[in-house]
Amino acid sequence: MTGKVYLVGAGPGAPDLITVRAANVLRRANIVFYDALVHPETLALAEHAEHVAVGKRSGRHSTAQRFINKRLIDAARKHDVVVRLKGGDPMLFGRAHEELSALADAGVDFEVVPGVTAALAASAEIGVSLTRRGVARSVAFLTPRVGVGEKPNEWARTAASADTAVIYMGAGQADMIAAALLREGVAADTPVVVVENASLTQSRRFRLTLRELPAVTDLGLEGPATILLGDVYTEVAADVGERSAIAARLDRSA
Amino acid sequence: MTGKVYLVGAGPGAPDLITVRAANVLRRANIVFYDALVHPETLALAEHAEHVAVGKRSGRHSTAQRFINKRLIDAARKHDVVVRLKGGDPMLFGRAHEELSALADAGVDFEVVPGVTAALAASAEIGVSLTRRGVARSVAFLTPRVGVGEKPNEWARTAASADTAVIYMGAGQADMIAAALLREGVAADTPVVVVENASLTQSRRFRLTLRELPAVTDLGLEGPATILLGDVYTEVAADVGERSAIAARLDRSA
Repeated sequence: MTGKVYLVGAGPGAPDLITVRAANVLRRANIVFYDALVHPETLALAEHAEHVAVGKRSGRHSTAQRFINKRLIDAARKHDVVVRLKGGDPMLFGRAHEELSALADAGVDFEVVPGVTAALAASAEIGVSLTRRGVARSVAFLTPRVGVGEKPNEWARTAASADTAVIYMGAGQADMIAAALLREGVAADTPVVVVENASLTQSRRFRLTLRELPAVTDLGLEGPATILLGDVYTEVAADVGERSAIAARLDRSA
Repeated sequence: MTGKVYLVGAGPGAPDLITVRAANVLRRANIVFYDALVHPETLALAEHAEHVAVGKRSGRHSTAQRFINKRLIDAARKHDVVVRLKGGDPMLFGRAHEELSALADAGVDFEVVPGVTAALAASAEIGVSLTRRGVARSVAFLTPRVGVGEKPNEWARTAASADTAVIYMGAGQADMIAAALLREGVAADTPVVVVENASLTQSRRFRLTLRELPAVTDLGLEGPATILLGDVYTEVAADVGERSAIAARLDRSA
């Protein structure tokens, strides 16, 4: 009796970094509920659909989330193809759990279409792999952001333990992040790369060390930023001007 | 004077989980060097290109890698668009570093096109998010596979520290993985989900606990498998038959 809700990853930003499946679902959509960070060209793929902005920024999260859940369920009672379009991938820092649980409880069928997450686009852009034989075999993806009523967790210990750490939604808390990682024993000269607006033409990339990470707050970042940290970024920091391709990419943007 | 080499992520397996950009690059390709796990339909997108299999399995890695590096450089001296097509994403357990370094040293221009990595496809398939507010704010991606001449690293500590752990290329070493995680203090009843051939029609999913993980070797897995571990999978294990959508998906495949 009801339609189906598709949780769709829009990818990291560039419209052509969406998957073919996601693009096809958008073309069939009757209604699309989209986040603030979705590119207009991506949204335009849903040419037959009603477009509803449900972007939410920090604060007042749970009320907004319950409202979105309700709208998805209501829409599935009226339409065949309902799309919930999220930046990146829905299952990694995408708050999919709340929406999927609400849909399951309401008996609404759903399907998740994965996407390219920001860290992979950032890595592609700077030309440095998150993993490397003999150097990095573990990568921690984490966010230090703590919601209302939540306890801070052990994210800094996990980041310190991993060979490479990727921090989402952390640029606004760079001071706190640097202090927490230093306290966990991460070396002050550990190389850090910050990528803002990965995959978009207005992307910017910055090379730092952990000691310098608090300076990120002075960079005037406005788009979503990914903080990459670990020894795989060592030669990027050390060899600028020598290693042609990798270094040049970072140099241009610094 | 030379062409450009594109390191392209083919995505997790299903041909329509490739990005639009990757599909477009394949359509323009003159020659494609592809891994064993790439789907034939994905390869078929490169309809004007010569197709060269360079899939390598464990063992004899470094010789094979040097040979691939050389072939990429040689190809870039003959062709405009050279594609190195890899399963998943090139920058996460994709051995991109060796190839990118060789290309940079040879002065060959390159570009990386990111892809959907297996863990995200596995999460989409089982309908369980890797992160969850109040439960999981850190995710470790790791592999316990140790190359010739490499020291084992602290992967088990990182996995134990993270809220959710994702283990790539681990199904063949399930005994060792379970023992190492138990030794790090991970609870024996921690829920585990194993997804084989994520996103493909022949995908299989298994619900276990960490204690039961060694049984994975009896499952006769032949395709690539992702091991997911953490409290986000608790209700999946506990509520089968009750929570309709999520539970039913797993139940069908168990």
